[in-house]
Amino acid sequence: MENYFEFPDVPTDQLPKVDSADDLKNLPIEDLPKLAENIRRTLIKSLAKTGGHLGPNLGVVELSIAMHRIFNTPKDKFVFDVSHQGYVHKMLTGRWDEIHTIRQYEGLNGFLLRTESEHDCYGAGHAGTAVSAALGMAAARDVKGTDEHVVAVAGDAAFTCGPTFEALNNIASTTKKFILVLNDNEWSIDRNVGAIAKYFHALQTSSTYSHIHDKAADFVEKIAGKSIRDIAQKVESGAKNLLFPNVLFEKFGIHYYGPIDGHDVDLLVKTFDFLKDQDEPVILHIITEKGRGYEPAKANPMKFHGLGPYKTETGETPAGGSPTYSQIYGQQLGKLALEDKDIVAVTAAMPSGTGLVEFQKVVPERYYDVGIAEEHAALFACGQAVQGLKPFLTIYSTFFQRAYDMAVHDMGIQKLPVRLCMDRAGLSGDDGPTHHGLFDIGYMRHLPNWVLMQAKDEDEFVDMIYTMSMYEDGPTAIRYPRGAGTGASLKDKPELLEIGVAEVVSEGTDVAIFGLGNMFEMAERTAATLTEMGYSVALVNPRWIKPLDLSCIDRFAKACPVLLTFEDHTIQHGFGAAIIDHLNDAGIQTPVERIGWPDQFVEHGSVEILRKKHGLTAENGVTKVLKHLPAIKGEAVAG
Amino acid sequence: MENYFEFPDVPTDQLPKVDSADDLKNLPIEDLPKLAENIRRTLIKSLAKTGGHLGPNLGVVELSIAMHRIFNTPKDKFVFDVSHQGYVHKMLTGRWDEIHTIRQYEGLNGFLLRTESEHDCYGAGHAGTAVSAALGMAAARDVKGTDEHVVAVAGDAAFTCGPTFEALNNIASTTKKFILVLNDNEWSIDRNVGAIAKYFHALQTSSTYSHIHDKAADFVEKIAGKSIRDIAQKVESGAKNLLFPNVLFEKFGIHYYGPIDGHDVDLLVKTFDFLKDQDEPVILHIITEKGRGYEPAKANPMKFHGLGPYKTETGETPAGGSPTYSQIYGQQLGKLALEDKDIVAVTAAMPSGTGLVEFQKVVPERYYDVGIAEEHAALFACGQAVQGLKPFLTIYSTFFQRAYDMAVHDMGIQKLPVRLCMDRAGLSGDDGPTHHGLFDIGYMRHLPNWVLMQAKDEDEFVDMIYTMSMYEDGPTAIRYPRGAGTGASLKDKPELLEIGVAEVVSEGTDVAIFGLGNMFEMAERTAATLTEMGYSVALVNPRWIKPLDLSCIDRFAKACPVLLTFEDHTIQHGFGAAIIDHLNDAGIQTPVERIGWPDQFVEHGSVEILRKKHGLTAENGVTKVLKHLPAIKGEAVAG
Repeated sequence: MENYFEFPDVPTDQLPKVDSADDLKNLPIEDLPKLAENIRRTLIKSLAKTGGHLGPNLGVVELSIAMHRIFNTPKDKFVFDVSHQGYVHKMLTGRWDEIHTIRQYEGLNGFLLRTESEHDCYGAGHAGTAVSAALGMAAARDVKGTDEHVVAVAGDAAFTCGPTFEALNNIASTTKKFILVLNDNEWSIDRNVGAIAKYFHALQTSSTYSHIHDKAADFVEKIAGKSIRDIAQKVESGAKNLLFPNVLFEKFGIHYYGPIDGHDVDLLVKTFDFLKDQDEPVILHIITEKGRGYEPAKANPMKFHGLGPYKTETGETPAGGSPTYSQIYGQQLGKLALEDKDIVAVTAAMPSGTGLVEFQKVVPERYYDVGIAEEHAALFACGQAVQGLKPFLTIYSTFFQRAYDMAVHDMGIQKLPVRLCMDRAGLSGDDGPTHHGLFDIGYMRHLPNWVLMQAKDEDEFVDMIYTMSMYEDGPTAIRYPRGAGTGASLKDKPELLEIGVAEVVSEGTDVAIFGLGNMFEMAERTAATLTEMGYSVALVNPRWIKPLDLSCIDRFAKACPVLLTFEDHTIQHGFGAAIIDHLNDAGIQTPVERIGWPDQFVEHGSVEILRKKHGLTAENGVTKVLKHLPAIKGEAVAG
Repeated sequence: MENYFEFPDVPTDQLPKVDSADDLKNLPIEDLPKLAENIRRTLIKSLAKTGGHLGPNLGVVELSIAMHRIFNTPKDKFVFDVSHQGYVHKMLTGRWDEIHTIRQYEGLNGFLLRTESEHDCYGAGHAGTAVSAALGMAAARDVKGTDEHVVAVAGDAAFTCGPTFEALNNIASTTKKFILVLNDNEWSIDRNVGAIAKYFHALQTSSTYSHIHDKAADFVEKIAGKSIRDIAQKVESGAKNLLFPNVLFEKFGIHYYGPIDGHDVDLLVKTFDFLKDQDEPVILHIITEKGRGYEPAKANPMKFHGLGPYKTETGETPAGGSPTYSQIYGQQLGKLALEDKDIVAVTAAMPSGTGLVEFQKVVPERYYDVGIAEEHAALFACGQAVQGLKPFLTIYSTFFQRAYDMAVHDMGIQKLPVRLCMDRAGLSGDDGPTHHGLFDIGYMRHLPNWVLMQAKDEDEFVDMIYTMSMYEDGPTAIRYPRGAGTGASLKDKPELLEIGVAEVVSEGTDVAIFGLGNMFEMAERTAATLTEMGYSVALVNPRWIKPLDLSCIDRFAKACPVLLTFEDHTIQHGFGAAIIDHLNDAGIQTPVERIGWPDQFVEHGSVEILRKKHGLTAENGVTKVLKHLPAIKGEAVAG
């Protein structure tokens, strides 16, 4: 394995380590590359066990060191876009020894969280927020008359994202002291798309570029010893429009510096030292390599953007078990698309995460990756629907929050048959609160004209995808969880499901249990326990969140003294709430017990631990039901 | 009054009029300016009675004529951003004689609606959607192999808006046939802000600009007779960066043409005729005057962007009655800000609409208008909150849907004390479904950490604003309606309200009526009728949507056989639903009758008509309650 370690002969325990940013400031400047190497070795070794965003963090080691060398957090403010690249920052601010706990329950969060450290002034998890939030901080500083620095760090992918442009448009008119670092590695999670990516690429590959900048003579002098050409010439050429590479940012009134080598820590330190004294907003464009120093990560940046445990030596990850919902989605939608020429698929920079890479292999001409641009993705799909195509808009539940207005204003009001596929609906687990998909029923069910659904297993999931493809009367949405399902095998041909009709799995008169989607399994186990205890249990797979199967609900609410619902969603405005709401209007007073997530942002950790902690268990279901039933029933009483 | 009519001596009935776009195509080309004049006269006269978006439509008369002269809707697709400038398009596509019904119940909608005409391929009401949606249509055309044209028309304000940039980033990689018209008049609703506005201004004022375009020799020849200098020199100069005015769009891979005079119909016709045959995406930059041809509208573009009835001769509008919630908001927040140096206010291009112009007058240094950029506005406020300021983020309820992710991901998870002031919450009336604010309780109440409230009158409203200013434990939101309230007079000093404690106005045992916010008045009337009939009626002003006053609700739910709720919000996921949800969990089986909006997008029309049509009346409240009470009670039986 070829790594780029600069000090292969120095044992790790002889490399410098720091317990705080003060330690870092006290290191001799020539030790910084060794510090960088220690950080890389620690990350590669530690993340092999926990998983995490290895590639991005290997890319920002020198950047993070240089920032902490020059600036002083918590007084100065660092705002990292998405903040998945914040591990190094965590290590440099007193959390080096905890980095092995990252993404583990009660360990460090995989992103920045304000509650974790005073050095983390702004948390994130979704792209494109850093420039705006940092600008707010700069504006506040100016109002208060204090003198702290604000440094926003955003990857090139953030520049496909609307809010970043909205913020760029406001920088020059808002403050005179603002540093934006464009960390350019040509990759977001998958390779970037669109004109801006091409533009950055042009900047990178401009071999004629020579830091011409009328007002930056000082700066040019400082970096004169270093040429960007070494890096630039490694990248393929072919870009055209190279005459005025800095014009885009200058148009926004932001003074542009770069591009410079983002792995030259000495250069970075000198550059920040220069930039911090500028009295105008500046952008520093640095070129970094995702996965720097670790060959498997460099060879496969998509995989190593974020991954589970791997073998340190080779980067191999354990073979997967059952296919995930995402994989099934991509494969099956591709299959459907071969027969239905109107099917198109749209993703917002998540072709691998959503499984659409599989779709792309089959029908590349009907596949669209628009970048991290959920609003545009949603509107683009609306335009396709207007023209009679069948767009499958594929976005994680939590990221679709970005396009919420379009669910109302474009799809809803206009009744456009956009098919919204919400991956990662439900608890996302170790990614934590920014990535859980626990709010989508809440934000969608009260919108007129929408049909909402969730499948109990993979086979029904494919039936639903097919049913969505055939439904033309308005927008439809399906929510499905991260990871694998029950492992159910797929039928040869998907079936058309009748909208608004639930599947009654068993009849009963003591309790009716409604297990929505991936929680059907838990409902099934609850039903089995109660049945074993001698109760008469009805088990329902609801399938439809909107419209509800009202006659099914009414029938069981009249027959049983209690209903129980399971959902991988917050209780408030959830599926169970919809049943309660309806029963009130129908004048049926049967109580509804609910299992779901509480009214709080759920922390990170394994799904198993978090479900147990928050009472999403079959045992809890049994307990809740028994409150409403006579203690002993019939002859078959169980423990 | 000086108008710019070109044919002042020709009586209106001798000017040409068209009943369809075919009629328009059959007119002699030299009659088009006269047609334009007839359209202007008709609009000025008609809108004087109905109100409407006069200024923007006077600005696009020639543009709309030229588009319909060259292209063929419905086959070709016109996508108007926001679509408030679609009146002329409506007049040219068979709706001339209905223009007097605009914004009236059962009349033409004030925006485009797909259901209104086959010529309206895409509806809108919020800014920044046109380029994306049109690009989706172009992509669909390319997939289907058909040959229709797609023309998107966006004002300069759309370019402060994230989705527009997300779309620009995707045009060149998506299609080779796409026409984007940048209708540049330097005004959105209020004057535009930010770097992009400055940039467009530079394009307008570039007296050295001479249509240099390497690939556009044909085009230059066609327009050679026309100089842009006449217009440009009218505008103040002072822009700097004029060397490469087209570079911004060229960076996005879009061929730039312009700027040209948007009131020269002949030039526009020739230009579209040229552009429609280009085999690459193009942007045409036209300069127009908002209010063209009507001096009062030109003199006061902000007022005439959209307004109620006015006197044709002078543009005067009737004096207002009670101050609106927006006005009170701006004034009172300004007053608070004088005493509390941490208060700042943020608007997304709505300083007049939200009343923040009044705030700006008092503390201009703590006032921020960020452009039509709700996401950035929200994030910017988060950054301010991080630094200890007290940001009042002021956005219409329907537009805040754009920043929904920030309510979850930035304010919610981080518990940042951003104060969200949702103007136009509830039915917006004649603006119709894109502008009603009927979903905000639905999309907010299930978000952890938020406090939500609504005041019964203006005085309590100011108490709430003050209470928000003093609350630092997390984000707070207040919803308040369009227009004036009850006319309640304001106390000298606002009072701090206790969060989560409702106001019990009267006690009772037959029914408890909860009237949320502006619906309290209707609850009061319902209570009066029922009291007159001899029932014992409790009347509650709930104040808090989250947290609910649970003990108050429980007390009345136990004391009364029925509860009744009023809310200016959709019933689903509304305030009444929150009570029902809680009662289920508390094991209290009292039925809850609800008055609110149904599960459908509500049409446009007067508030009075629509409330009556959809059952939001005191009479309906009485009827719903009586279902649950004995028919006659006590001695005091009324009709």
